[in-house]
Amino acid sequence: MWQLYQFPLCPFSRKVRLVLGEKGVGYEPVRESPWARRDEFLDMNPAGQVPVMADDRGVVLIDSVAICEFFEETVSKAALLNGTAADRAEIRRLVSWFDNQFFRDITGPLLNERMIKRIVHRATPDSGALREAMKAAVAHLDYIDFLLDHRTWLGGATMSLADLAAAAQISVADYLGGIDWKSHEQAKRWYVGMKSRPSFRPLLAERMEGINPPPDYEKLDL
Amino acid sequence: MWQLYQFPLCPFSRKVRLVLGEKGVGYEPVRESPWARRDEFLDMNPAGQVPVMADDRGVVLIDSVAICEFFEETVSKAALLNGTAADRAEIRRLVSWFDNQFFRDITGPLLNERMIKRIVHRATPDSGALREAMKAAVAHLDYIDFLLDHRTWLGGATMSLADLAAAAQISVADYLGGIDWKSHEQAKRWYVGMKSRPSFRPLLAERMEGINPPPDYEKLDL
Repeated sequence: MWQLYQFPLCPFSRKVRLVLGEKGVGYEPVRESPWARRDEFLDMNPAGQVPVMADDRGVVLIDSVAICEFFEETVSKAALLNGTAADRAEIRRLVSWFDNQFFRDITGPLLNERMIKRIVHRATPDSGALREAMKAAVAHLDYIDFLLDHRTWLGGATMSLADLAAAAQISVADYLGGIDWKSHEQAKRWYVGMKSRPSFRPLLAERMEGINPPPDYEKLDL
Repeated sequence: MWQLYQFPLCPFSRKVRLVLGEKGVGYEPVRESPWARRDEFLDMNPAGQVPVMADDRGVVLIDSVAICEFFEETVSKAALLNGTAADRAEIRRLVSWFDNQFFRDITGPLLNERMIKRIVHRATPDSGALREAMKAAVAHLDYIDFLLDHRTWLGGATMSLADLAAAAQISVADYLGGIDWKSHEQAKRWYVGMKSRPSFRPLLAERMEGINPPPDYEKLDL
């Protein structure tokens, strides 16, 4: 049985959990708070970040990109990188877009202002930084609308790792009150579809202690 | 023929160029300065970053991770992700380590202080930030020594994408005066081996206008 080191609002752990859910891979979640910099965890992953996965035979998988590629290579069910090499490159481009640009502009600042400041620094959020993140979210939802003008799913004709990477980031941003769906009908319809997947339901039911999501967070009829 | 949008000191473009060199894929370098935010380039890549590759048939590849995976999938010569799925996960972990942690701690700050400030802001570098980057470089070289205590190459028994990702970042940090090899004999021997590869020689011969590397930058006997 795999163990998955993670915390409920980590978007990269959520991406991995969606992959594991789609592929039907069982795992036991292990709560890890990377900001605590626990010695045993740093020994396992010098980067100090979740997600990390470990199995009974001593295999340790580190970094969400490496973990997703590992399960794509070893579990054929629910292929998440379909198509030609160029199609796969486009899916990986979008995974990187959501892992890096969306995280840098939106999820990262929201986690910093609304979670890290509360838990670690006992400080109040910077309203300017929150405003910037919410403004960036509008631009990112515009881009998702644009992609869906041309495609059924974000990465192409089939549901792919791009949709899971995007939904993982958006779900954390949504939990932290950073997403306003107004005038983003296409993106909203796509996201409601993602939320209704069996792989997604367990994530939406979890809570981070002391931080409550907005009332619509779990709803399927936004 | 592929076109590769890049600038001489971009560590991610260097990683891709090393992959192309090892695999014997021809390309024409196209100079792109991402900080200029050229409209036509942003239309091609909304993330605004190099490397980007484009061919005559309209295929566009974006993001260094996606580009490296594309050529690993399509060109069998010089396999760079060898071994079992777990071995491949370890190689990808290290690629991410150098692309993200090494870049965040060392190459990114050095590029900002010694290139962007000079070219864009016409400002002098912050000596505190440079000191921090050089301190971080010592810790990263220690980690490379540690890896080489246990392995012939950084990612395992064969030369892999991990070695190319590491050498790409280190070569830019070295160009910018951020690397001191003192008491890092193993890392130095490995890096001299990387520098002597035919894929690496053309990169070392290039210069970024107005910024000169230290005298030992191209030398094979450090």
